[in-house]
Amino acid sequence: MSNGDKVSRRDVLKIGSAGALGITGSYFLNQITPFITTVKAETHGKNNHAKMNHHNNMNDLSKTSGYKMAERLLTTFDYGKVSTLPNGQTLREYEVVAIDKEIEIAKGIKFPGWTYNGTIPGPTFRCTEGDLLRFHFTNKGSHPHSIHFHGIHPPEMDGIVPITSGQKFTYEFEAKPYGMQIYHCHVLPLARHIHKGLYGNFIIDPKTPREPALELNMVMNGFDLDLDGENDFYTVNGYAFAFMNHPIRVKKDQLVRIYLSNLTEFDLINSFHLHANYFTYYPIGRKDNPSLFTDTIMQCQGERGILEMRFPYKGQYMFHAHVSEFAELGWMGFFEVE
Amino acid sequence: MSNGDKVSRRDVLKIGSAGALGITGSYFLNQITPFITTVKAETHGKNNHAKMNHHNNMNDLSKTSGYKMAERLLTTFDYGKVSTLPNGQTLREYEVVAIDKEIEIAKGIKFPGWTYNGTIPGPTFRCTEGDLLRFHFTNKGSHPHSIHFHGIHPPEMDGIVPITSGQKFTYEFEAKPYGMQIYHCHVLPLARHIHKGLYGNFIIDPKTPREPALELNMVMNGFDLDLDGENDFYTVNGYAFAFMNHPIRVKKDQLVRIYLSNLTEFDLINSFHLHANYFTYYPIGRKDNPSLFTDTIMQCQGERGILEMRFPYKGQYMFHAHVSEFAELGWMGFFEVE
Amino acid sequence: MSNGDKVSRRDVLKIGSAGALGITGSYFLNQITPFITTVKAETHGKNNHAKMNHHNNMNDLSKTSGYKMAERLLTTFDYGKVSTLPNGQTLREYEVVAIDKEIEIAKGIKFPGWTYNGTIPGPTFRCTEGDLLRFHFTNKGSHPHSIHFHGIHPPEMDGIVPITSGQKFTYEFEAKPYGMQIYHCHVLPLARHIHKGLYGNFIIDPKTPREPALELNMVMNGFDLDLDGENDFYTVNGYAFAFMNHPIRVKKDQLVRIYLSNLTEFDLINSFHLHANYFTYYPIGRKDNPSLFTDTIMQCQGERGILEMRFPYKGQYMFHAHVSEFAELGWMGFFEVE
Repeated sequence: MSNGDKVSRRDVLKIGSAGALGITGSYFLNQITPFITTVKAETHGKNNHAKMNHHNNMNDLSKTSGYKMAERLLTTFDYGKVSTLPNGQTLREYEVVAIDKEIEIAKGIKFPGWTYNGTIPGPTFRCTEGDLLRFHFTNKGSHPHSIHFHGIHPPEMDGIVPITSGQKFTYEFEAKPYGMQIYHCHVLPLARHIHKGLYGNFIIDPKTPREPALELNMVMNGFDLDLDGENDFYTVNGYAFAFMNHPIRVKKDQLVRIYLSNLTEFDLINSFHLHANYFTYYPIGRKDNPSLFTDTIMQCQGERGILEMRFPYKGQYMFHAHVSEFAELGWMGFFEVE
Repeated sequence: MSNGDKVSRRDVLKIGSAGALGITGSYFLNQITPFITTVKAETHGKNNHAKMNHHNNMNDLSKTSGYKMAERLLTTFDYGKVSTLPNGQTLREYEVVAIDKEIEIAKGIKFPGWTYNGTIPGPTFRCTEGDLLRFHFTNKGSHPHSIHFHGIHPPEMDGIVPITSGQKFTYEFEAKPYGMQIYHCHVLPLARHIHKGLYGNFIIDPKTPREPALELNMVMNGFDLDLDGENDFYTVNGYAFAFMNHPIRVKKDQLVRIYLSNLTEFDLINSFHLHANYFTYYPIGRKDNPSLFTDTIMQCQGERGILEMRFPYKGQYMFHAHVSEFAELGWMGFFEVE
Repeated sequence: MSNGDKVSRRDVLKIGSAGALGITGSYFLNQITPFITTVKAETHGKNNHAKMNHHNNMNDLSKTSGYKMAERLLTTFDYGKVSTLPNGQTLREYEVVAIDKEIEIAKGIKFPGWTYNGTIPGPTFRCTEGDLLRFHFTNKGSHPHSIHFHGIHPPEMDGIVPITSGQKFTYEFEAKPYGMQIYHCHVLPLARHIHKGLYGNFIIDPKTPREPALELNMVMNGFDLDLDGENDFYTVNGYAFAFMNHPIRVKKDQLVRIYLSNLTEFDLINSFHLHANYFTYYPIGRKDNPSLFTDTIMQCQGERGILEMRFPYKGQYMFHAHVSEFAELGWMGFFEVE
């Protein structure tokens, strides 16, 4: 019921992105110019954000390489190469390669990443409780790395032994317990190895499958471009504002399940807030853990869980960190409910 | 059972306030002098806090305009203008005006606020699940603003469209789900619009009323006076140390229910600790969420919940953030149990 | 299943410690030299941590005074002097002395502490719900101090009245509710009094005893050596890397119960992560609170809880903060499962 309102919701998208880029842009121009290659955003004074330029590169609807990475990670699960062992157990084998790679983390902004399989975050490994897993890890990066998996397994498979450049190691263990796990490099200095991009989600499905749903993978993270120990961009799945201009399409009343984790380095927590709707949050993705009906949750680094929701109305639902700074620096998106 | 103790509990109040002001005062004199108008507190060295001046303006028992605002917000709920629709549904209409206003946030210290209806936090809107709500919003402020309500409603009512100065907009939706909601401005830059004071609590009562209790409204917030992105004062309901010198009066064994939210900007969490007693915490104020019996809880920005407690003994019970810095900079008070 | 790996798990321990000390050492040499008395660690550049010196003082297996303190605090509980009152109630009397004392918080690094009974954290007080407790407190320190106990008791026993140097005070109250409590000094400025070392765990056992287990006491804390309001070391029980070189010995499948609290000053949260295993977390140590099956939990200052776990495999299980910075600055250890 709009009375004097003359701004459409579509304009808001533009204002929103422009505003965020206004901040980001001016921040970059002042602080970290050496890292910028292609940003030419106009900067905006603190008090004239209402008159912001509606046409800038954040509203460019082209699908950049960074956006495509974030989108692919949203719905792609790596189930490994599947075979059956003589005892009937399912064996899943995953190929994981650590490789240095420059990643586009916002339009035109590159980050000199250390990656698993070329993306930040790395692939979302997925299996079922009780499967035997083999992660064939090759370190083609320039530094020693490892894979530390969360979960229950023999401690010698926990990934604290550095695998030096050019070496290989196979992590082998049975998948347990069911729920949301994560994985990340565990070589010291920890903060730098994690922050450079060596992390991802690792889903162990329960033996009794979950109810069918639109399943989405989201890793909350940050990027420190000027190496001052503070993040300059925040994203889900590695690309700032990925789902602002390309909202995630969802059907009305459809069950949506988000596998969410926090791998943000340098900040003590990150958070997730959904507009105009609530979700049920299952910490660790386990039904035997206490669930929460809310629209805002926080996670410290290493925490993860499953969010389940249905959208009762059509339209565009914003989601973002409920830390304003993180939202403004890229951790913001939309669901488009049809 | 005091042996060598020569300091009464009343003196502690003085020492407590003096100590906190000592810090605050010296901080201000060194850091943000331009913002101070009337503070003349003596400053105290780091090592002589035991000999602090017992008589200073924090112990002035006069009820300042800032204190009166905080006290009024504690027990005032805005139920709107009530009528009944032809279908029997209750309609509640609220008038909300965004207006720039200087607010006293500590004795003699003014903050150039952006407010809803002239207070920081704004009014506590209250209704019952299933009511039809109309918030008639007029922006009389100098910047574009909006009202983003947490809860479940059509996304076009979520308040991300900026309402420019002089314009009006009516947000209309059915109240759901029952529990504790919050509301705040959602215009970019988010951190600044929220921090300037545009937020408040929004309570949706369950259809079956809660047990009668002394009901208190508390919004945890902070104020950054020197615009360095860090808060200089922390309060509940907008006024530092409001309930230190004017304890909240409670009857022994009476049920006390606190509607608590965290709208603090710039800091990742805030917390609530009660002395000498425990409370039951209901996240989001819902009985179907897991409750916690404790004396200390934390909330990230946007989190909120209900605390219920009874005081088994008479006397003065301190409550404050269990972040020492926040407590010392104003987020501290007393219950007086009679 | 190692293929090209040439580094043993034992080497990792060395690399791990060396890496952490490399960081710490260089940090110290650059930042806080005046505080260092005996550190002579070689420093390592940011990019050659793979070639780190395997022989340095972090791997010295001698049991320093700081290590011995941390180890003693791990399994020592102070049950007080026990007697029975005429009405049959158990009376426990504890002697607590505040005393200034220099504490070794990392190998060769001393912290000018304010302590209860000469250790940081202070003793772990322990009793059973319903006992009458008397804490005979003597302040032999150079500043006013107090003991603020969490729990339910008459508010005049809550420890906000400063006890000046040379004075005594007896805190007396009945132990309730059962669960994990903490205690700390409550004299202003709070942050400084807590951070200097005046805190500890306080366990109230339920009347029906818990299942027998290997019981461990852990207080997460930090130390700010250069007084810049940021911690330079993080530990459990006061000594950096205490349980890295001297892993905590545990039997396979044995029930292990950890009484964990967060008394870290200056940082908004701390966290606990266990490798290769999960634990059940009971907030406040109460069965009626919602428990969580996970491998990572966070606590704000003042939060505490019980972790219960069994180790299904032999080997070395790392545990540490899942804040990389805290882990690297000392909050890291091992369980050795035999």
